[in-house]
Amino acid sequence: MGGDHGPAVTLPACAAFLERHADAQLLLVGRAEALQSRPASLRSERCLVIEATEVVAMDDPVEVALRRKRDSSMRVAIEQVRDGRADAAVSAGNTGALMAIARYVLKTLDGIERPAIATQIPNVTGGATTMLDLGANVDCTAQHLLQFALMGSALVAATTERARPSVGLLNIGEEVIKGNEVIKRAGQLLREAAARGDLHFYGNVEGNDIFKGTTDIVVCDGFVGNVALKTSEGLAAMVGSLLREEFERSAYSRLVALLALPVLRRFKRRVDHRRYNGAALLGLRGLVFKSHGSADAFAFEQALARAYDAARAQLLQRVRAGIAQAAPWLREAAPS
Amino acid sequence: MGGDHGPAVTLPACAAFLERHADAQLLLVGRAEALQSRPASLRSERCLVIEATEVVAMDDPVEVALRRKRDSSMRVAIEQVRDGRADAAVSAGNTGALMAIARYVLKTLDGIERPAIATQIPNVTGGATTMLDLGANVDCTAQHLLQFALMGSALVAATTERARPSVGLLNIGEEVIKGNEVIKRAGQLLREAAARGDLHFYGNVEGNDIFKGTTDIVVCDGFVGNVALKTSEGLAAMVGSLLREEFERSAYSRLVALLALPVLRRFKRRVDHRRYNGAALLGLRGLVFKSHGSADAFAFEQALARAYDAARAQLLQRVRAGIAQAAPWLREAAPS
Repeated sequence: MGGDHGPAVTLPACAAFLERHADAQLLLVGRAEALQSRPASLRSERCLVIEATEVVAMDDPVEVALRRKRDSSMRVAIEQVRDGRADAAVSAGNTGALMAIARYVLKTLDGIERPAIATQIPNVTGGATTMLDLGANVDCTAQHLLQFALMGSALVAATTERARPSVGLLNIGEEVIKGNEVIKRAGQLLREAAARGDLHFYGNVEGNDIFKGTTDIVVCDGFVGNVALKTSEGLAAMVGSLLREEFERSAYSRLVALLALPVLRRFKRRVDHRRYNGAALLGLRGLVFKSHGSADAFAFEQALARAYDAARAQLLQRVRAGIAQAAPWLREAAPS
Repeated sequence: MGGDHGPAVTLPACAAFLERHADAQLLLVGRAEALQSRPASLRSERCLVIEATEVVAMDDPVEVALRRKRDSSMRVAIEQVRDGRADAAVSAGNTGALMAIARYVLKTLDGIERPAIATQIPNVTGGATTMLDLGANVDCTAQHLLQFALMGSALVAATTERARPSVGLLNIGEEVIKGNEVIKRAGQLLREAAARGDLHFYGNVEGNDIFKGTTDIVVCDGFVGNVALKTSEGLAAMVGSLLREEFERSAYSRLVALLALPVLRRFKRRVDHRRYNGAALLGLRGLVFKSHGSADAFAFEQALARAYDAARAQLLQRVRAGIAQAAPWLREAAPS
């Protein structure tokens, strides 16, 4: 039901997803009348409908979503994961509400105080950099950042071919003396974790390293991560709009644009963040993925595929194992 | 002497600057042998040479720059400002060293605890967004953010046609309840300052608003600002390199690139951050501007012009007046 476009986008995406994943099953959760209109390809035994009477609005306060809308599609979908009827839940709805409901319904894994949101950002190598947290936690301790690094490593190891992905700590300089006290302490905890073999710590990275692909994973607090992500979205939108403006400026430039179409299309495909749609909510006792609210059917299908891949790769068990291995040190590192 | 290229860039930039600013005078501060090679146009009474025996290296720790290199070109240049022989100092050198030396030599203005670094970032409106702090302060209180807003307002009012520039507080959502405690308190202080008429506060802005040009000024702590700026630089570099790669891929794309040259050149000019080179160090008892270390002669000339414009517009007096007007409230707002 969620996102800027609701079922108009999610239903076609579901149809495309089922077509491409022959062994997948979908549970569509939402209002009866919205799901009535689904295409024929979503009327097989591989696609069940679960009715929910309410919908969390994109601007609902977390409290309303959590306490007043107990039969929201978002909540019912997450309950399917809790009750073992679904391997993962995917939503394009309100991020704050999704995190709050997921946390309330699923609970966090042992050793995790704060779940985090992780997404992939395309980088210049042709691959993607996994970044977390992206806004779930506005104030983080060094221990939280260590937990994010462990969870991010489990995510990348589960869903890519990197068995020991590298972790960078987002900072304002490469030297270990850079940053505020939390960051310096986090660097120390990450170096200790790397020395024990719990993860592969590269060291500090800076904002530009996200797009250079210096490390597989970039760890930061949710305030910084959210600002970095939205700043990138803003710059990308500006570049796109200025490029369009210049190619539309005159008869000559429009002709050139026509000739340049195959080149510009390839370029667009390479910077297309829709391919990486689908952020993981990590640290919960169940898999939940968040699609961008503005996702189109192609992008929403990627989020579904990401959830599918994560479930097949046993992401939950991997995150649990990564945290369990480091548990004694996480306890020790916790401020008394 | 500073920056990645030293006098090879700064000297031609100085020559171009003098040519375009008929009433300007330059004091070139640096090693005798480096300045010997200056072009003839830098040998008039409008261009004096002041020798300094040492140079702060780009990777010198702040302590070395501050305590061991007492005759560095950076320090001697800032001393010219302190002693009233120069209206502003411009350097492409080590940012941390420049801030530390400027703070030590010039001292901060009354009411300012932390100087800040402010730069302009091109936005989609064709203008620029002024952003501060960009890395001088990794931990900020709400009071510091209020001071940054006042100083940024003075800067924009002095150097553009906006008499009452708008200030946005960088946050992870527009609602006043968003963000961590420091940000929420800063929002409150900014609303109070706006109610008194000390500045024009727009409210919270998000990362994408920097490039949308939603406000004239975006205020944030130095950690967040530095990450946002470097993330943007990284994305811009990636976009440029992918665009180049696609236009160089085949004989056809190279031909199209040739035809598209005027279009691509216009595009490049519009996103050219070199035009905005020259960050202001605000809150000191003297004007100091920082050029990007990688600046070429065109970019370094812009930094010189920015310093010149600021000095002519009496930026120092304006910042002082802005802070003095708000002084009673800054004291009241300070945590006891």
